[in-house]
Amino acid sequence: MFREKQYLQLPGPTPVPPRVLRALSEPMINHRGGEFRELLEEVTSGVQWAFQTQNEVIIFPAAGTGGMEAAVVNFISPGDKVLAVSIGVFGNRFAEIAGRFGAQVERLDFEWGQAADPATVAQRLAEDKKGEIKAVLVTHNETSTGVTNDLPAIKKAMGSHPALLMVDAVSSLGAMDLKTDEWGLDVVVTGAQKAFMLPPGLTFLSVNAKAWAVAQKNTNPKFYWDLGSARKYLEKGQTPYTPALPLLTGLRESLKLMRGEGLENAFARHRLMRDMTREAMRALGLKLLSDDAVASAAVTSVFAPERVEANKLRKAAREKYNVVLAGGQQKLDNVIFRVGHLGWVQPLDIVATIAAIEMALMDCGVEIALGAGVTRAQTLIRNAK
Amino acid sequence: MFREKQYLQLPGPTPVPPRVLRALSEPMINHRGGEFRELLEEVTSGVQWAFQTQNEVIIFPAAGTGGMEAAVVNFISPGDKVLAVSIGVFGNRFAEIAGRFGAQVERLDFEWGQAADPATVAQRLAEDKKGEIKAVLVTHNETSTGVTNDLPAIKKAMGSHPALLMVDAVSSLGAMDLKTDEWGLDVVVTGAQKAFMLPPGLTFLSVNAKAWAVAQKNTNPKFYWDLGSARKYLEKGQTPYTPALPLLTGLRESLKLMRGEGLENAFARHRLMRDMTREAMRALGLKLLSDDAVASAAVTSVFAPERVEANKLRKAAREKYNVVLAGGQQKLDNVIFRVGHLGWVQPLDIVATIAAIEMALMDCGVEIALGAGVTRAQTLIRNAK
Repeated sequence: MFREKQYLQLPGPTPVPPRVLRALSEPMINHRGGEFRELLEEVTSGVQWAFQTQNEVIIFPAAGTGGMEAAVVNFISPGDKVLAVSIGVFGNRFAEIAGRFGAQVERLDFEWGQAADPATVAQRLAEDKKGEIKAVLVTHNETSTGVTNDLPAIKKAMGSHPALLMVDAVSSLGAMDLKTDEWGLDVVVTGAQKAFMLPPGLTFLSVNAKAWAVAQKNTNPKFYWDLGSARKYLEKGQTPYTPALPLLTGLRESLKLMRGEGLENAFARHRLMRDMTREAMRALGLKLLSDDAVASAAVTSVFAPERVEANKLRKAAREKYNVVLAGGQQKLDNVIFRVGHLGWVQPLDIVATIAAIEMALMDCGVEIALGAGVTRAQTLIRNAK
Repeated sequence: MFREKQYLQLPGPTPVPPRVLRALSEPMINHRGGEFRELLEEVTSGVQWAFQTQNEVIIFPAAGTGGMEAAVVNFISPGDKVLAVSIGVFGNRFAEIAGRFGAQVERLDFEWGQAADPATVAQRLAEDKKGEIKAVLVTHNETSTGVTNDLPAIKKAMGSHPALLMVDAVSSLGAMDLKTDEWGLDVVVTGAQKAFMLPPGLTFLSVNAKAWAVAQKNTNPKFYWDLGSARKYLEKGQTPYTPALPLLTGLRESLKLMRGEGLENAFARHRLMRDMTREAMRALGLKLLSDDAVASAAVTSVFAPERVEANKLRKAAREKYNVVLAGGQQKLDNVIFRVGHLGWVQPLDIVATIAAIEMALMDCGVEIALGAGVTRAQTLIRNAK
């Protein structure tokens, strides 16, 4: 009977606040009318605030992956050379999408669990004397591993190279600091179901002047993802096709919550939950996939103990304690489990999650000091006050 | 921003499941039509199931206190002598209502924190050779202290005395076993916002044949609380006046959840959460108001440590950790705090609550072994599997 009360500790979708859920239920309105114009202007301005940008931002009714595809088809033409920096599943996805649309994709892969090395990026771009590389694709927070790339360092590594810096910030934006303008990020993509605390179904892109100029010359066929068209419609307070009305009224409400907390406070909350999770797991003798220096504030990847299947542990947590943890993806499946601490989640929820992981470990026959993780997490909460 | 995510650990209102909240939002229907008749019949039958009774049950749009008043004005006539057994605030309230309507109230008070002694009840009724006492009023679960009276023992103590046994089961029914028919309870009252997991606004009464016979001769003026009238309307699938439609559609949904869990499982869950709370508080060196033998499965009263104001502790739990605890009432105000573990609450929520109490204690300068309560509670959860 408590399925609806589960602790949903995924790196998205995150729990949705009741007031946002209620805001999904407003009556339909005319999406070619004045009421919609006000709504679109309000949420667009709110998304700009969250992106820390003066750039235009465009909202598509789509998954985050749709935002990545929109970035590819607007800013990369068939035949363009792109440098795809990948540290995991979502870095690979960005590269794969670019390849599907005819880009010459050069991969720069780093070991899963590590961040991209800006020096390697700098070296590769320095070699590209003719400026053949048109775009650098990079993941801000790699959801599959729980590693955050250092965007300002990567931007710096690009030096004066003319390539666009295109950022997949789907699981970071709003949870971790991302200064679109100050850091000089040309294109930034995020999604609704992470720090924005919405159900899935919206993706947001910010585009700066340099990127708009590139888009104008883009040769990809496109209709749904046509950012230029969306920009023109936005000027008159509309969208090129029917918008996802409930998600936009939900977004209006979640932006109020986000503004109420403030970005700095939200970042600090996510960092606290990251530290609680990491220190608790260590106190229980578990190993973490990533180093502290590059650890994500949205999701933590933890190795299951030896001789314990990660998915069996997750099953115990879910079925016995109603805590939903994410599994590992691809080669990390059944090797790690991932604790999402993102979105509408508060520190005490992470205390409960850690308590459930402790119990699940014991259920799987792992000897631990029951309470050791919880106590460490409690101490961090108190120190954070 | 997390006010809506608070751990609402009150002995009512309890958290309401989202599907029940959604069921509050159905379109209005004609309360004199067939659709309403089906609704009323379905929820009435469900409430009978929860009451473990074949008696008629009547649903009023009112607080639990309204149900108590309905019991008084239907079954006690002005001038009637009643024996009001009280072990706390709500026992006193039942007595006070009877007094307001002209009953000669004889009080049988027991110390707060203790249960009623059936032997004392037996002795008093044995003295009443003429059968002047028309009703015995008793609280099943005294919410103000967290003590449960032994109803079968009190019924047995009444022996062959003809008085009605009228039970305030507002905070117990659905959380603790109450066998209306098997235990021979003449009138039982409960409310929506406790184990029924609804928002406040409904009260339920079960009435057996003996009580209906008494009601027929009752001389109190009444309209709103007229059970006879409600019974007649119920036969045609209606209510004497406008029913609280949203709460009835909500009740239909919460009864589905209750049936899905099953009464025995619900009782076991509440007992587990009681034991977790009690053992955790003891592990932290705190004193409990009630003995184990009479401890409520719905709410636990805990003495604040010496030199700590209970309300200051509650404030810390609420403001720093988003956990809402109940205070003491009347003479227990600022002396105890009460942990509600009732309704839509699961064991892991109580782990989080205990963690917050631990941290709040430290914030108030109390030296405790951080995690000692949590670990004890975790152990009980695991043992319960």
